[in-house]
Amino acid sequence: MADPQRLSINQITVKNWDLEQTAAGLARHGIGGIGLWVDKVEEVGLPRAVEIVRSHDLSVSSICRAGFFTEPTGNGAVSDDNRRAIEIAHETGADCLYIVCGGLGPDNDLRGARQRSQDGLAAMAEVARDAGVALALEPLHPMMAAERGVVVTLDQALDMAEAVGDDVGVAVDSYNVWWDPRLDAAIQRAGEKVISYQICDWLVPQPHPLFGRGIPGDGVIDLTALGASVDATGYSGPIEVEIFNEEVWASDPDDVLDAVAAGFARV
Amino acid sequence: MADPQRLSINQITVKNWDLEQTAAGLARHGIGGIGLWVDKVEEVGLPRAVEIVRSHDLSVSSICRAGFFTEPTGNGAVSDDNRRAIEIAHETGADCLYIVCGGLGPDNDLRGARQRSQDGLAAMAEVARDAGVALALEPLHPMMAAERGVVVTLDQALDMAEAVGDDVGVAVDSYNVWWDPRLDAAIQRAGEKVISYQICDWLVPQPHPLFGRGIPGDGVIDLTALGASVDATGYSGPIEVEIFNEEVWASDPDDVLDAVAAGFARV
Repeated sequence: MADPQRLSINQITVKNWDLEQTAAGLARHGIGGIGLWVDKVEEVGLPRAVEIVRSHDLSVSSICRAGFFTEPTGNGAVSDDNRRAIEIAHETGADCLYIVCGGLGPDNDLRGARQRSQDGLAAMAEVARDAGVALALEPLHPMMAAERGVVVTLDQALDMAEAVGDDVGVAVDSYNVWWDPRLDAAIQRAGEKVISYQICDWLVPQPHPLFGRGIPGDGVIDLTALGASVDATGYSGPIEVEIFNEEVWASDPDDVLDAVAAGFARV
Repeated sequence: MADPQRLSINQITVKNWDLEQTAAGLARHGIGGIGLWVDKVEEVGLPRAVEIVRSHDLSVSSICRAGFFTEPTGNGAVSDDNRRAIEIAHETGADCLYIVCGGLGPDNDLRGARQRSQDGLAAMAEVARDAGVALALEPLHPMMAAERGVVVTLDQALDMAEAVGDDVGVAVDSYNVWWDPRLDAAIQRAGEKVISYQICDWLVPQPHPLFGRGIPGDGVIDLTALGASVDATGYSGPIEVEIFNEEVWASDPDDVLDAVAAGFARV
């Protein structure tokens, strides 16, 4: 059974709350970890976000998200958005900053988009290193390859992270990787490069490709086995629940936190 | 440019036509290949289906589809449906019979479902061998892992096919495999085990996860490069266009065939 002390809630799970409401809500439910989104931080301003997080004694498990290296930007330079995300991760003391590489880009060149991702990650890692921020490269589900993320397997993310340097990690998100026949081997290969672990469930039937993720325990992913594989790497950090789901978003966020905590305890 | 002589049309692309209409339609458009679906064959009866195919001098590039080893059946025995599909492939002289392994099954056990697929494939291969029918194991897109196919990469399909024996092949379907960072390596590894090649395109934005496939050339898959990789294995057989798309199905099938032939020539 998952240690309730490891539960962290990604802000998107209670999307309709702002940061103040979320921090207060997590306190009511005795949850000590939060995953922040850049836009939700900007909504209240970074200094105030830091105050809110500190005053509720919350541990920031991640910042979502930066990257998007495949969009046309400025000649491989680190974008202002990516520099700002690093600053937010630094100021909030987040465990890591999530990196999503972006989709095919305007020329629909898969190979080129992957190369731009590799180059963009390398450039960004230098800035992050100077700021003492850990980057967590996240493979997305292959169904998002065209529009959101050309990095689609944990092995591919590891190849890229290793090419950049020892201080770039990877994120394991159950929804994105559960189907991979090489998953156990890739997690084992990753070892201490696993620096973040997010969970949600795959519902059957799938209500919606993007906004149909399930509360842990409500779907078909063997989260108990996956958690054991992740823990076997030595990872003992937060387990962040991140749910994109229109039905969940339409519910009372306090009820959602109750359901998530109950599901979390089951898996 | 693709050789128009290699174009074959999967029946699902012109779903609203029955076999007689499809055969006549293909003749009108000068297309010599057809991929048959079991249910469309049963609709007219197998003997009549054979007559229709022969009288129009059509070459049958594939039968879709058999397998579904992960559903509860009879103790690993080859199901009547699978035996019948083999008979249909034999009688119609099809190049191959597509094998889709099935989803997680009632117990949501991914590892178990993959083992049942391996065992089911082995049992079915014996029956197919006796009938002189080639099985083409098809990896499905990972987004279908839960509900339709736990075999999701070409490498995984090759591992399974190799474990069964030299006479089990694999099918490459552009929609299912285009995202895979290991695709080129896996196709090269497959070599002469590639016994069928199906194409359609991945549309952006994706209209629907299952029924939003595009006419070749309308989406983001580099079908020219993929075709070159497949041909480099020595494969010189039919290129079958298989499109699941509600908008395509709502169109006049003669217009669809015109559009498919034009798209095919472009890629």
